[in-house]
Amino acid sequence: MNATRRETDSLGEIEVPASAYWGAQTQRSIENFPFGETEQMPIEIIRALALVKQGAAQVNRRHGLDAKLADAIDVAAREIVAGHHDDQFPLAIWQTGSGTQTNMNVNEVIAGRANELLIGRRGGKSPIHPNDHVNKSQSSNDSFPTALHIATALAVHRNLLPAIDRLHAALRAKSEEWSSIVKIGRTHLQDATPLTLGQEFSGYAQQLVRARQQIVAGMEDVFAVAQGGTAVGTGLNAPSGFAEDFVAELKGLTELPFRSAQNKFEALATHDALVALSGTLAGLAVALTKIANDIRLLGSGPRSGLGELELPANEPGSSIMPGKVNPTQCEMLTMVAAQVIGNNQAVTIGGLQGHLELNVFKPVIGAAVMRSIHLLAVGMESFASRCVDGLSPNETRIAELVERSLMLVTALVPEIGYDAAAQIAKHAHECGITLREAGLALGLVDAATFDRLVRPDSMV
Amino acid sequence: MNATRRETDSLGEIEVPASAYWGAQTQRSIENFPFGETEQMPIEIIRALALVKQGAAQVNRRHGLDAKLADAIDVAAREIVAGHHDDQFPLAIWQTGSGTQTNMNVNEVIAGRANELLIGRRGGKSPIHPNDHVNKSQSSNDSFPTALHIATALAVHRNLLPAIDRLHAALRAKSEEWSSIVKIGRTHLQDATPLTLGQEFSGYAQQLVRARQQIVAGMEDVFAVAQGGTAVGTGLNAPSGFAEDFVAELKGLTELPFRSAQNKFEALATHDALVALSGTLAGLAVALTKIANDIRLLGSGPRSGLGELELPANEPGSSIMPGKVNPTQCEMLTMVAAQVIGNNQAVTIGGLQGHLELNVFKPVIGAAVMRSIHLLAVGMESFASRCVDGLSPNETRIAELVERSLMLVTALVPEIGYDAAAQIAKHAHECGITLREAGLALGLVDAATFDRLVRPDSMV
Amino acid sequence: MNATRRETDSLGEIEVPASAYWGAQTQRSIENFPFGETEQMPIEIIRALALVKQGAAQVNRRHGLDAKLADAIDVAAREIVAGHHDDQFPLAIWQTGSGTQTNMNVNEVIAGRANELLIGRRGGKSPIHPNDHVNKSQSSNDSFPTALHIATALAVHRNLLPAIDRLHAALRAKSEEWSSIVKIGRTHLQDATPLTLGQEFSGYAQQLVRARQQIVAGMEDVFAVAQGGTAVGTGLNAPSGFAEDFVAELKGLTELPFRSAQNKFEALATHDALVALSGTLAGLAVALTKIANDIRLLGSGPRSGLGELELPANEPGSSIMPGKVNPTQCEMLTMVAAQVIGNNQAVTIGGLQGHLELNVFKPVIGAAVMRSIHLLAVGMESFASRCVDGLSPNETRIAELVERSLMLVTALVPEIGYDAAAQIAKHAHECGITLREAGLALGLVDAATFDRLVRPDSMV
Amino acid sequence: MNATRRETDSLGEIEVPASAYWGAQTQRSIENFPFGETEQMPIEIIRALALVKQGAAQVNRRHGLDAKLADAIDVAAREIVAGHHDDQFPLAIWQTGSGTQTNMNVNEVIAGRANELLIGRRGGKSPIHPNDHVNKSQSSNDSFPTALHIATALAVHRNLLPAIDRLHAALRAKSEEWSSIVKIGRTHLQDATPLTLGQEFSGYAQQLVRARQQIVAGMEDVFAVAQGGTAVGTGLNAPSGFAEDFVAELKGLTELPFRSAQNKFEALATHDALVALSGTLAGLAVALTKIANDIRLLGSGPRSGLGELELPANEPGSSIMPGKVNPTQCEMLTMVAAQVIGNNQAVTIGGLQGHLELNVFKPVIGAAVMRSIHLLAVGMESFASRCVDGLSPNETRIAELVERSLMLVTALVPEIGYDAAAQIAKHAHECGITLREAGLALGLVDAATFDRLVRPDSMV
Repeated sequence: MNATRRETDSLGEIEVPASAYWGAQTQRSIENFPFGETEQMPIEIIRALALVKQGAAQVNRRHGLDAKLADAIDVAAREIVAGHHDDQFPLAIWQTGSGTQTNMNVNEVIAGRANELLIGRRGGKSPIHPNDHVNKSQSSNDSFPTALHIATALAVHRNLLPAIDRLHAALRAKSEEWSSIVKIGRTHLQDATPLTLGQEFSGYAQQLVRARQQIVAGMEDVFAVAQGGTAVGTGLNAPSGFAEDFVAELKGLTELPFRSAQNKFEALATHDALVALSGTLAGLAVALTKIANDIRLLGSGPRSGLGELELPANEPGSSIMPGKVNPTQCEMLTMVAAQVIGNNQAVTIGGLQGHLELNVFKPVIGAAVMRSIHLLAVGMESFASRCVDGLSPNETRIAELVERSLMLVTALVPEIGYDAAAQIAKHAHECGITLREAGLALGLVDAATFDRLVRPDSMV
Repeated sequence: MNATRRETDSLGEIEVPASAYWGAQTQRSIENFPFGETEQMPIEIIRALALVKQGAAQVNRRHGLDAKLADAIDVAAREIVAGHHDDQFPLAIWQTGSGTQTNMNVNEVIAGRANELLIGRRGGKSPIHPNDHVNKSQSSNDSFPTALHIATALAVHRNLLPAIDRLHAALRAKSEEWSSIVKIGRTHLQDATPLTLGQEFSGYAQQLVRARQQIVAGMEDVFAVAQGGTAVGTGLNAPSGFAEDFVAELKGLTELPFRSAQNKFEALATHDALVALSGTLAGLAVALTKIANDIRLLGSGPRSGLGELELPANEPGSSIMPGKVNPTQCEMLTMVAAQVIGNNQAVTIGGLQGHLELNVFKPVIGAAVMRSIHLLAVGMESFASRCVDGLSPNETRIAELVERSLMLVTALVPEIGYDAAAQIAKHAHECGITLREAGLALGLVDAATFDRLVRPDSMV
Repeated sequence: MNATRRETDSLGEIEVPASAYWGAQTQRSIENFPFGETEQMPIEIIRALALVKQGAAQVNRRHGLDAKLADAIDVAAREIVAGHHDDQFPLAIWQTGSGTQTNMNVNEVIAGRANELLIGRRGGKSPIHPNDHVNKSQSSNDSFPTALHIATALAVHRNLLPAIDRLHAALRAKSEEWSSIVKIGRTHLQDATPLTLGQEFSGYAQQLVRARQQIVAGMEDVFAVAQGGTAVGTGLNAPSGFAEDFVAELKGLTELPFRSAQNKFEALATHDALVALSGTLAGLAVALTKIANDIRLLGSGPRSGLGELELPANEPGSSIMPGKVNPTQCEMLTMVAAQVIGNNQAVTIGGLQGHLELNVFKPVIGAAVMRSIHLLAVGMESFASRCVDGLSPNETRIAELVERSLMLVTALVPEIGYDAAAQIAKHAHECGITLREAGLALGLVDAATFDRLVRPDSMV
Repeated sequence: MNATRRETDSLGEIEVPASAYWGAQTQRSIENFPFGETEQMPIEIIRALALVKQGAAQVNRRHGLDAKLADAIDVAAREIVAGHHDDQFPLAIWQTGSGTQTNMNVNEVIAGRANELLIGRRGGKSPIHPNDHVNKSQSSNDSFPTALHIATALAVHRNLLPAIDRLHAALRAKSEEWSSIVKIGRTHLQDATPLTLGQEFSGYAQQLVRARQQIVAGMEDVFAVAQGGTAVGTGLNAPSGFAEDFVAELKGLTELPFRSAQNKFEALATHDALVALSGTLAGLAVALTKIANDIRLLGSGPRSGLGELELPANEPGSSIMPGKVNPTQCEMLTMVAAQVIGNNQAVTIGGLQGHLELNVFKPVIGAAVMRSIHLLAVGMESFASRCVDGLSPNETRIAELVERSLMLVTALVPEIGYDAAAQIAKHAHECGITLREAGLALGLVDAATFDRLVRPDSMV
């Protein structure tokens, strides 16, 4: 037996599970968008909405909201932020494009829980009404995008930037550790002039420095929140100063530098800020793909690849080939990158289709950005600790390859010219001999000159 | 207290929860890829892998696999297909790019369960070994892509095509129902010559016909499976005829027209077939966006929009504006479309980065395709039943708009020429009068001619 | 001194270069969209529009268009198709989204040239009027998309499919030529079990077979043309049977199986057919990226890469490193593929934003598809003749790598089991010895068994 | 008769047109990559390379390059920058992925022209050698990406940012001009609470402020140039201090704040900086799509659309419907945006596929970024001057719509509560009466209260 109770909204009555805190509008959305558990709105967005409700209750209290009601709202919202009611938010990402139903889900659960705290009966609209009290001075149109910005900012600051720093540190450590290992360079996947393995890894570290800077620049506008714009940006039904007071609360709750969006019309009608941030996440994905691809290429082998790096053996690699070890962390990271780039496309398409006073692709934009941040953060942490940290160079192999390279001939160019140097390289390649042998054989360079100029160690 | 037992693989021993059916390799992957519950490999792919194991066991039995072992494998695999062990597959999408770990997860759970059936002890490698028996004649490199094709084919045939048909029927019904409602056409969002509301909806129905055809064409190669190629496509360690015998089993298990891939090297090294299918899903997403956008535009209002259609009021529309009803099903469907297009980008990027004998973006490709199919199928079903079915035309409004349109002037062109007709339209627009008034005032047409030619009913 | 003459349209008079055949509307568009020469509408689309005008004139003649006028239109249109007036079409891709201005450009040039033929005076609207005669029974809304389909179909059939066939033949030839060269396989970029070089290339050939099939399936709807729908799909102002008669003419002019679109509303309001085709072009781009990437990887070296293939030296590779030869055709082809995938995104975004009776992203869709076809066709032809044809295997290197591979151990599994085989591979790897040595040392296999089972030639 | 002369490179001799300044390597590339005139490397990249050569010659002079040779190189390079030799750069975008062939094209033309200046004979390698003198201290691997950054920076600063500013000013002017025109707001395309037309346009202006900031942030890394890294980033064959000295020259030549890239390995091996910039261009494209879509929606009509704005009539709109005026500048701008987003995808795919010491997707990345900048710059300028500047509000229509809106009911909520207000709105909608009539009829509000609260002017 599944007990139910009746809840109402402007469309009428509807049965709600007796155990649920939510009300009529949540129930309608459950029934209208049956996408199943795997497609639920990310819990981080729910918790960010609860932060919005907390902050708004504090400001509303100063503008006349009964303190007892404000306190109860505050308690209920804090419980949600703390993760005590995660099962009360069953709605799908795929709902109304303003996120109104998730906003109402949070409003209803807070009201339902606060009413329980106040009068011992779960749910309902009295003494605390989901719209008139919990949503007071707010609209979904400003609360939901504010929540998306809060959830994004928390995830970036708590998870993504630390993960970038972690991976950057791992790469820089290797770069420093390997600063005197001279190896063959490769351009166009063809042998080129030498560099050190440390230099190669310094490029990867620098990629993360850049990607981080772009993300931080992209965050600039994410800290600007829509709250206070209410329905269309004019702030109708919010008291004067609400936006600024709310932001002050929010900064206290999150310890992050939020500010009130300069133009609320833009903040409701567009998601240009999240589109820009998503673009920087795609940029990070591009950088990670390069790094992971290079590492698996350098680690290819063990006997028929480039074989310059040895990757940690975290697991058996094959269900049929015994003893195989694969670059699985590289594979994970490049797959994550592919999805992040795809998500950026989803965000872009959502971002460009706003109409007039409201962009109604908020849930897909928010969910895609949150997923991308999660994938990147966990992916980089794992890649740093389970791959980069454990890399070791095969110095014998590295030395062997650099010694026999034909592109060391480049060092002769300033003295004998490009055309003569090219003849030496061609001759060595065709005859399978060393550059030195070829140069002497062709009479294009003497032994002393060759030995003075062609020294890999001094070419890096 | 969490009891554990020891399992082993070629890297050594590892503690596994005593209650789990899985073994060492699954456990390692849990620890190596900590993405959390929301990022688990879709259960449909797990079940499809179980179908692979069922089919392979049947063929292996004929090639010497002990019947008792084959039977136990079969029972355990059936249980997985039936959904009895969904909690035994905790691995993330983001793992090794061959899906080896998920393949081993299935191999281990089947072995662990089959061993329990045979000797009463859960887990282990004896009498049934995950590699030597469950994975016999297979590699992850052929089994996992085969499972992706199976999961895709089942989802397309059970869910996606029926949903297309459902939505197509709904649109066609409206097209027929409204075949005599004459309305203003709009090109460039500007008033144009008239058509019927039924004709407008016939275009939407036709879009689904086309999208369906493209998907069916895209499925052609999805029915070709890699099984039998084993590690690199040569079929090493599989008995002769394994590929064909397996497909015969698979057709029996699924009642779908699978065939053995003509070239196993291509079937392992690329996912061109899934890339192609994903492209057709993006094509469907494009079509659905057009349809949903049009319907919300025609339904805009109620008083300040086009107002030609009335959409069903499924829920209250606003947390701040009472009485508002929004086109939420349109919003859901266009958001779904954005994600599907983004997923196609992820699939594309995964597809183009295969290396030599193996594409190692299998999990992201498979998971993205499965999610796209799910979103589209549920989205279309919901849109059909909760939006299209409930649409009704505002005939008063429609008639009013068509009557006062200036573009009816086009009907005069064959008799008075383009330039004279343009003068009439401009004059009517500038003076805010009717075309008839303008035509007579300018002396460019007589009343009888005008009344004979300018009849919206005969212009459609 | 640049002589001009005056032309008029419904907005009034405008100066046109005296030497130009075009009229007022073309001139306005030149001034309103100043993107410069590099952004002109592709000439193939212009020529396709001229074919539309030719076909329409023939049908209009049967419905009362004066034969003298029809003949003059026909002559002028033929001249355009033959490329005699390429400098008369200066308009940018970036104009009105219906392509109306390019349609009027063609109408005006045909009228202007036909008037010159008839009365010796270039330009003007008499005796032949661009709208009343050249555009008779047509709208831009049906003519322009029809031209896009014609241009696409001609380019696919004349250039793209032959280029696919050319490259397929080159790859298949290599596959057959190299059918007995046994080489190491690589999965996850790690050494795997062997296959032949011919088998590897057979996979590439098969990729082209598949991509071709998808393109041919995608062409199915491109052969359906919008002509006859006129302004909004109803066929207003076109005589009965115009659509079918036009298609009959078109088939004669092009020798391709065009048909009249079943639903003209859909054919004007959407570009789902071109979106679908574009998706298949992206699929081909994915396949080509895989092929070109593999070839440059196999050809990497000459001394520090995989070194299994030697690529033709078409040009010096480096401005600083003498004697360097690079896989430039591979680089060209993968860059082409990147742009084609990007173009597909542009087409997708254009395709999803149609409104009501007209999609107004026609020019960007048409131009992007045409560019993609051109890039792919030239790119594949060049890649086939300047890269694939000239590939040669380095058999010494190939043999050396396969002999020392550890993954040959897989062949032991059916006799000694996965776990024992894994021990042998690990031992060989750690000690840097051969599998045979390791197997005997560990006592896990005897020499006779080893020599019977581990034979690369019999593993492919 | 086409006279030729012989030029040589390390592959041997080749015939070159006698009139050409270029040499053997350019000639080979012409023949190896036959994509035709429409696919030539953008001339802005050529000119930027010439700037590189100018700057390098100055630095090389200080490190021993004969002053006479340096002067001649300088003169020839200046001529190219000034556009005097545009026809000497026939190579395709689609060539080697390092841009080496275009670098050699510039080297050869400069050498060929400088030799003509010095000895009266066009072409050749003496006294000035393309590699040893013009390319001295450089590699394509640092010169070409440096040129891409220069070309991008010049285009952004000379064309893109001014165009953003132009459009921003146009939008802000309208925002200020229309600050007291109260109009209906629309969310979900449904009637919502009012705002001013000026507020609506202030949102568009703000979008450009944000997009500009992101682009400027994205430019940060574009100002860092690779020059001095030579072949693989080590600076082999360049004198000490070359990178810094070059940048000093470059700043003088361009008056832009270039700096030497902190890490040359990253600067050669990746294009993360251009990928990031491209992402911000896509962000601008998203913003422009929103703005242009809104304007065409507000201008829809003239009689059957929203009809709040009148757009300038720049040209006749239809080839079949006389008197039609279409939002062609909006269409142009949204098409441009679609291509820019597509180009960003091409750039992304090129960016993620770099290998080891060199990304070999330089030409596609550079050409796509340059095209995107050009399209956006011209598109915004045109849209500002030919659309936004000429917009005028239909104040009668605007006033009419706001008066009859049902969502004014929102103003009652703070006094009578959400539920009662919803009843009033529903009743008014169902009966087709005013809110005031409905409120009084239901007894939920008195006339005085209604008249005090429901005043559109005070709701904005």
